[in-house]
Amino acid sequence: MSKLWSPIVHTLTPYVPGEQPKIQNLIKLNTNENPYGPSPKVIAALQAEAADSLRLYPDPDSSRLKTAIAEYHGLQASQVFVGNGSDEVLAHVFQALLKHDLPLLFPDITYSFYPVYCGLYGIQYETVPLDKQFGIAIDDYLRPNGGIIFPNPNAPTGIPLALAEIERLLQANQGSVVVIDEAYVDFGTESAVALIGRYPNLLVTHTYSKSRSLAGLRVGYALGDASLIEALIRVKDSFNSYPIDRFAEAGAIAAIQDEAYFQQTRQQVISDREKMVDELQGMGFEVLPSGANFIFARHQRIAGEQLATGLREQAVIVRHFKKPARIADFLRITIGNSAQNQALIQALKSLLHA
Amino acid sequence: MSKLWSPIVHTLTPYVPGEQPKIQNLIKLNTNENPYGPSPKVIAALQAEAADSLRLYPDPDSSRLKTAIAEYHGLQASQVFVGNGSDEVLAHVFQALLKHDLPLLFPDITYSFYPVYCGLYGIQYETVPLDKQFGIAIDDYLRPNGGIIFPNPNAPTGIPLALAEIERLLQANQGSVVVIDEAYVDFGTESAVALIGRYPNLLVTHTYSKSRSLAGLRVGYALGDASLIEALIRVKDSFNSYPIDRFAEAGAIAAIQDEAYFQQTRQQVISDREKMVDELQGMGFEVLPSGANFIFARHQRIAGEQLATGLREQAVIVRHFKKPARIADFLRITIGNSAQNQALIQALKSLLHA
Repeated sequence: MSKLWSPIVHTLTPYVPGEQPKIQNLIKLNTNENPYGPSPKVIAALQAEAADSLRLYPDPDSSRLKTAIAEYHGLQASQVFVGNGSDEVLAHVFQALLKHDLPLLFPDITYSFYPVYCGLYGIQYETVPLDKQFGIAIDDYLRPNGGIIFPNPNAPTGIPLALAEIERLLQANQGSVVVIDEAYVDFGTESAVALIGRYPNLLVTHTYSKSRSLAGLRVGYALGDASLIEALIRVKDSFNSYPIDRFAEAGAIAAIQDEAYFQQTRQQVISDREKMVDELQGMGFEVLPSGANFIFARHQRIAGEQLATGLREQAVIVRHFKKPARIADFLRITIGNSAQNQALIQALKSLLHA
Repeated sequence: MSKLWSPIVHTLTPYVPGEQPKIQNLIKLNTNENPYGPSPKVIAALQAEAADSLRLYPDPDSSRLKTAIAEYHGLQASQVFVGNGSDEVLAHVFQALLKHDLPLLFPDITYSFYPVYCGLYGIQYETVPLDKQFGIAIDDYLRPNGGIIFPNPNAPTGIPLALAEIERLLQANQGSVVVIDEAYVDFGTESAVALIGRYPNLLVTHTYSKSRSLAGLRVGYALGDASLIEALIRVKDSFNSYPIDRFAEAGAIAAIQDEAYFQQTRQQVISDREKMVDELQGMGFEVLPSGANFIFARHQRIAGEQLATGLREQAVIVRHFKKPARIADFLRITIGNSAQNQALIQALKSLLHA
């Protein structure tokens, strides 16, 4: 029946997200969720939304949410775009801002959804190899392009790039959009949001799924010059008028208002990450420097796939990428709570001593 | 700054949804929401979702929801696609199934999002005029095409098309996808779902926003042959892995399980619609036959725009389309609850006697 498909469908290679297991009692350290639930104030705000008013459409512009996000970051609401998770925001970014005659540039090892979006929208791209230390080398991006996108910290490496390097890129590259995907920025990486006023071609994306503990609610956003935001709104309003449901808007507003909870939980994750790094290094792992809520590590002796399989047999799941070969021996391990982290360490110890 | 935009953005004319007023105490009969809130069982299910588990991603495949919808309609889960409102489902349908060398066909007076999707995805289309009675004439669609889409009942006319006519179209048109958009089908129109087993090129879309009283939750779905559904899944997984948040999945499952509430509220709306039609006809309105939760009506003497403006001044909002000229004197009026319907009638009476 595939003659009924639009021709493009035959060419797509969809993104494969980390497993969301339906079995209980797994130690789930594979999709970088926060080990701590959302703030109690968020839970209360969400409970209040379960009401008769659900019969009505939400605000198609999510004005209250945009205003709350803008105030938090010291911007105007016209500099904020919101979507159903940062994956949806990124999809609109690719379609609205990154399709040009020159190729889009992004790292060869990065968020694996980027080439999928390019396939969906017919965007030409070139990948730029990470340097020998798995870092993003800005000099390699200083050439003609139709746009540049990378996460900071990068994923799955977790390595943060200094803000001065991002500003150097922006100074040298003013003719195309530079997107900094800050999904993990709150775990110890410098944000580029402070540069938005000075660089009208800078777009920064954030998510509520990681540091705000709301992966189940689906809210992401983009910050940038009002002209970039306008392009995103035009695409969104040609796609779906109401992407943000009533729960998503109310929960996201409440989350941004509980700064104390946010600070406490993100600091806990950062501090637990540093303990985890020490432990793993002591067990013979090389751990890349992380500014995220996960680490990327390989053992000096045992292959990545073998470790991932062995952990799974002990009910601990982490993420392992078979490709490219350069990272095939790494595991991407989410920082969990204390008990989860200890379970991981114990399971690894038993594998190393087997 | 628009040189930074992807060229397509300059060509877009976004959809403009009906107003979602931020003022309280308006009689809101403009966006076809249900006057009755969701079932109490839905509210309870939603309250239970406001929990620690929101830190985790939802099921990217929404398997439980697909199974519930499939069982309700007597289909397999592989014949169900779900999305963030039927607008998102339709967007994926246009991209995945309706972009071909031959033009897509749809009525000249119909859901005004269809040409917007065509603009977003570069789909060629031709509109087919409604007949003299504002009906869809199947014979006019029996010609080479890259796909056919229309709502049943049509919007904004509300006129239902008999199932036999849809089957006649399917028999004559087996080489391209036929999409029947059944957003309003539960208010007295025959559903084409029963034909899915026999016509592998038939796709039917439904929404939770109208008869299920959940416009604020954002859930829609498509039903059809597994091969059509596979195309939609490929596009969805190249766009956003997790469009259905935890509230949306839980609420939609609970709604489909409360059949008694569904039957009671939709019958109430149908019965109130018939009363409204009688009243308006008695006041000199021509009312098109409706199989929806709204009516499309024009007065023999007073222009549509004048009535819409006059109603708004009395805090009653209905939808008025200035274009095309053929429908410029019609008002699209949502069936509200008893008090809302009476308020509308009173406001109209005062305008007619002014």
